[in-house]
Amino acid sequence: MDAFEPRDADFRRRVTKSFDLQPFANHIGGTLERVDPGEVDIALKYKPELAQQHGYVHGGVITSIADAAAGYAAMTLAAPSVGVLTTELKVNFLRPAGKGVLLAKGRVIKAGRTLNIVQTDVTEMTDDKTVHVLTGLVTIMFVEGLE
Amino acid sequence: MDAFEPRDADFRRRVTKSFDLQPFANHIGGTLERVDPGEVDIALKYKPELAQQHGYVHGGVITSIADAAAGYAAMTLAAPSVGVLTTELKVNFLRPAGKGVLLAKGRVIKAGRTLNIVQTDVTEMTDDKTVHVLTGLVTIMFVEGLE
Amino acid sequence: MDAFEPRDADFRRRVTKSFDLQPFANHIGGTLERVDPGEVDIALKYKPELAQQHGYVHGGVITSIADAAAGYAAMTLAAPSVGVLTTELKVNFLRPAGKGVLLAKGRVIKAGRTLNIVQTDVTEMTDDKTVHVLTGLVTIMFVEGLE
Amino acid sequence: MDAFEPRDADFRRRVTKSFDLQPFANHIGGTLERVDPGEVDIALKYKPELAQQHGYVHGGVITSIADAAAGYAAMTLAAPSVGVLTTELKVNFLRPAGKGVLLAKGRVIKAGRTLNIVQTDVTEMTDDKTVHVLTGLVTIMFVEGLE
Repeated sequence: MDAFEPRDADFRRRVTKSFDLQPFANHIGGTLERVDPGEVDIALKYKPELAQQHGYVHGGVITSIADAAAGYAAMTLAAPSVGVLTTELKVNFLRPAGKGVLLAKGRVIKAGRTLNIVQTDVTEMTDDKTVHVLTGLVTIMFVEGLE
Repeated sequence: MDAFEPRDADFRRRVTKSFDLQPFANHIGGTLERVDPGEVDIALKYKPELAQQHGYVHGGVITSIADAAAGYAAMTLAAPSVGVLTTELKVNFLRPAGKGVLLAKGRVIKAGRTLNIVQTDVTEMTDDKTVHVLTGLVTIMFVEGLE
Repeated sequence: MDAFEPRDADFRRRVTKSFDLQPFANHIGGTLERVDPGEVDIALKYKPELAQQHGYVHGGVITSIADAAAGYAAMTLAAPSVGVLTTELKVNFLRPAGKGVLLAKGRVIKAGRTLNIVQTDVTEMTDDKTVHVLTGLVTIMFVEGLE
Repeated sequence: MDAFEPRDADFRRRVTKSFDLQPFANHIGGTLERVDPGEVDIALKYKPELAQQHGYVHGGVITSIADAAAGYAAMTLAAPSVGVLTTELKVNFLRPAGKGVLLAKGRVIKAGRTLNIVQTDVTEMTDDKTVHVLTGLVTIMFVEGLE
């Protein structure tokens, strides 16, 4: 993985502010755990309303935090006037996620002028172990003027 | 697209029951609009808590109903004792979705003994037009004994 | 699917010329069968050197013509000075392909200023039937100055 | 990444034999560089007939060796009577590949009884540097009785 140079020295404040303004992120309850150049971690605690019919966390919820971690990882590298949009994502579900804490890690693999390719992985942490729940690849586009 | 023969004559009741038991589907508020062999439609009305930071519907929400439509489309073809799991999904976001009604259509392209390939598309319907918001491909696995 | 307006009235000649200049396309032996706005078909006859170890056509070959059909479908909509690059592709293999003729159809789903989302499908045609071999989604980028 | 226990002590001989029997792999000229449990590397030297219209290696060629590395990585973990099929793959093209040597690395992320999720990456090595050309995720299915 490359080392990345942020275009906006104030990227941490900007990512945090954007995250705090997301109604859906607040609705499901994720928290920002790490904001570094090209790297963002988001945690999510289990809540019953996030489950699917078998009691596991809904795949759409896991995908949502995987996507969010990817998008914010790219945003750490955006210029101050540039926002981010997900253009496509692909995820593989490796194991079901139960009642532990989910941690989604977005890591920029290729930073571009317009398109950024980001790897995203979600693990579930319980008292005695950590399991790999999801791996994916996300394309994030920089959009001038999108805050 | 092929014509499909359900293995469970009672598939409509079974899909509906499973959908009603999903905490997350109820949490975001989707409704089942169509349940036919290999074909399921799910609708979702805009609510402010489903938005991302720019006021559009969060990509994770759109992906969730796209995934759910795909999974239930495959479930219409499952034997009575067989449940469904998403093994992987890939979506392209075509346009942002605003305050209209989202309609996700899951259509089985290839039905298998174990793996089913399902196309999924989401449109947003407003008073005066319908726009294509997402297209995707989802692999759904049949799992014996999973209700 | 939308109807598309080509930006280059001479798009058929341009796509054909580009296809004819591809060493790899000539190497495996594909032929352009259709070039319309947003739609390109490529055919490929079975040859023993295109097989994998079980005698079926190699997945990489099928993916290659699926990708090419998608790229040229987007190229029909490019301005005269703009070339195309595949940024990402996702394919599902539905059935193995044997000794018939493969037909790859690229269809633009969303035409953009920079990014185009293209559906691609490959069928195998033998004397008595046509089977669906591959379905996929491809993102094609317009690049100014790339011939 | 997990450590993997091969089910077939003779996996190296089996993978090598299968690779040598592939007409297409021989046609484009790849070579097996590493065969370990869950890990396979394939190298490919530039040849003019593998190029697309701009002189870079054709995306279909790069995808082919990425897919092959993934499939053989999974095959190292298969029981003696079990073969492998690619069910789906997703790749992002990070940079164009020129006239160096390509190295595709397949790494099993999740080994299963039926489905294996494999990460695949391709780099181009020239005299003075190594660049990341492709990253992808591939699902490989175990099929009983397929040699």
